[in-house]
Amino acid sequence: MKTKTIILKHRPEGKPKSSDFEFIDEELADLKSGEIQLKLKYVSVDPYLRGRMRDEKSYMPPFELDAPIASMVVAEVIETKNDDFKKGDVVTGMLPWKKEQISDGKNLTKIDDKNVPLTAYLGVLGLTGLTAYLGFTEIGKPKKGETLVVSGAAGAVGSIVGQLGKIMGCHVAGIAGTDAKVEKLKSKFGFDAGINYKTTENMRKAIAETCKDGVDIYFDNVGGEISDAVLYNINKFMRTINCGAIATYNETSVPRGVSVRPFLIKNSALMQGFIVSNYEAKFDEARKQLGKYLKEGKLTHEETIKEGFENIPEAFMGLFEGENTGKMVVKI
Amino acid sequence: MKTKTIILKHRPEGKPKSSDFEFIDEELADLKSGEIQLKLKYVSVDPYLRGRMRDEKSYMPPFELDAPIASMVVAEVIETKNDDFKKGDVVTGMLPWKKEQISDGKNLTKIDDKNVPLTAYLGVLGLTGLTAYLGFTEIGKPKKGETLVVSGAAGAVGSIVGQLGKIMGCHVAGIAGTDAKVEKLKSKFGFDAGINYKTTENMRKAIAETCKDGVDIYFDNVGGEISDAVLYNINKFMRTINCGAIATYNETSVPRGVSVRPFLIKNSALMQGFIVSNYEAKFDEARKQLGKYLKEGKLTHEETIKEGFENIPEAFMGLFEGENTGKMVVKI
Repeated sequence: MKTKTIILKHRPEGKPKSSDFEFIDEELADLKSGEIQLKLKYVSVDPYLRGRMRDEKSYMPPFELDAPIASMVVAEVIETKNDDFKKGDVVTGMLPWKKEQISDGKNLTKIDDKNVPLTAYLGVLGLTGLTAYLGFTEIGKPKKGETLVVSGAAGAVGSIVGQLGKIMGCHVAGIAGTDAKVEKLKSKFGFDAGINYKTTENMRKAIAETCKDGVDIYFDNVGGEISDAVLYNINKFMRTINCGAIATYNETSVPRGVSVRPFLIKNSALMQGFIVSNYEAKFDEARKQLGKYLKEGKLTHEETIKEGFENIPEAFMGLFEGENTGKMVVKI
Repeated sequence: MKTKTIILKHRPEGKPKSSDFEFIDEELADLKSGEIQLKLKYVSVDPYLRGRMRDEKSYMPPFELDAPIASMVVAEVIETKNDDFKKGDVVTGMLPWKKEQISDGKNLTKIDDKNVPLTAYLGVLGLTGLTAYLGFTEIGKPKKGETLVVSGAAGAVGSIVGQLGKIMGCHVAGIAGTDAKVEKLKSKFGFDAGINYKTTENMRKAIAETCKDGVDIYFDNVGGEISDAVLYNINKFMRTINCGAIATYNETSVPRGVSVRPFLIKNSALMQGFIVSNYEAKFDEARKQLGKYLKEGKLTHEETIKEGFENIPEAFMGLFEGENTGKMVVKI
């Protein structure tokens, strides 16, 4: 039996293009004892995958050329020779972009849709929610009454961070790229203020106006000029969570910008790179807290769902065009 | 009676010039009850004073135009109407650049030259030593076997940081601006390696070669391109102490450079602005430790001493030309 697989054909130069990906038919081996056969149900596409497409040392190894790309997925067990799984079980884990595949069941977590939809496990209860919660609390160390700025605020992580900011008593301003997103930040996610960076001429001034008491915490998903503008508005002991730099992921030369060092010195400020995998010891506690907020109705999550295995690359490319509000997921 | 005073005549544009300073004669008031009359013995000139010459909010208020500049000094009591001080006492504290002056004695510390020369109180046992010790231990959190890079390594703070690095079991590489300084780093201060950034074409490569296991801690006194080159060599969980950015202090436009954010994200690395005044609660403990290292002969300190009250501005300007090795002090 054959299955469709998406491999990395070329390492993208600048923005990823369709031709960087290739669909191939791969033979599916016979199921051996201890294995299960899985069918993908949902695939998560995330900005950080762009980093793994580069051939350079980072916090995760780069994808290999001519080999499948992998990300977090939800999959259904359709055949099993493993006593831990029965047919119809639904699992989540990091798996390759193969429509059907064989697994030994390791590093997979069984989930169900009793309390939340399955896609929540790729979002608010998955790495997205954990990233938002642990980055914000562990590096941001929010205190009541402080001011939080979130960039990429309408994205999967950003929209959760802003809500956590409100839950913890912060004044919250979000930066996003369309008026509709900015409107949603306020009406749906409860942000106090929003800035459309695409239509704002003077970001530095706009941030000053929405953050009258200066910026104490900056949860940065985008990097680049937007983040440079934040620097001019920071308070003493300000903390930046450097979670992502999507604004510069597709640059082909080394990105440059305002030198942050004089700002850090003047304000005894901190910047720290955040990778959720460093905080595995706190996942359970964080998931519990996120689940509690979700049940209490304090946390709204939003998804942009594209359909079809063949549209995974397109959904991924859409991340860099701002096509998503909240978590981008592909339904297979 | 009149006394010579140095006032800030113009806020420097770019590098400070002689004409930014003015010597004036000021009338010395009569000594009132509770006051002491002081004569300057030594004046500390430091890169951070350049920051206070700008008219902008920072961790210390800016100097006012047409008012005296102030820095850490050593002074002798030459007359007293304050029971806490007797004639001949020697004190240290933050005082204006006035050859003789009246003080109420507040915020002054009595010192003597029994164990160390008086100038040590402006250097290794003063803010310089405290900056090196507290920046390195509180933000750097050194572990045995780690690699430390110090920029401005032959300077007052840098030369102490490197020695502390060796005391704490690190591999230490220093960056300085002349071959003589680089030689001294190794022969006098015990650094493992030194790089002359003025004669090195590829700093990124030179750092890689002197730090085979990558960089775990970067004590940064200079900022600018040198610090950008360090970024390419950092390890996971690397810490930067942003203590100074002398390379960019004289720039008239906002300094730009390589964007640090992608490097921080990839390496879960930290950058933090360091100002010694935030750590006052730890001064006593730090001074005790520095005094102990000094007595044990583990800490060598070096001074560049210029002579004459009239040469204070010149000594200050010399900091930006790399004229000092170790602490720059003016003997009055």
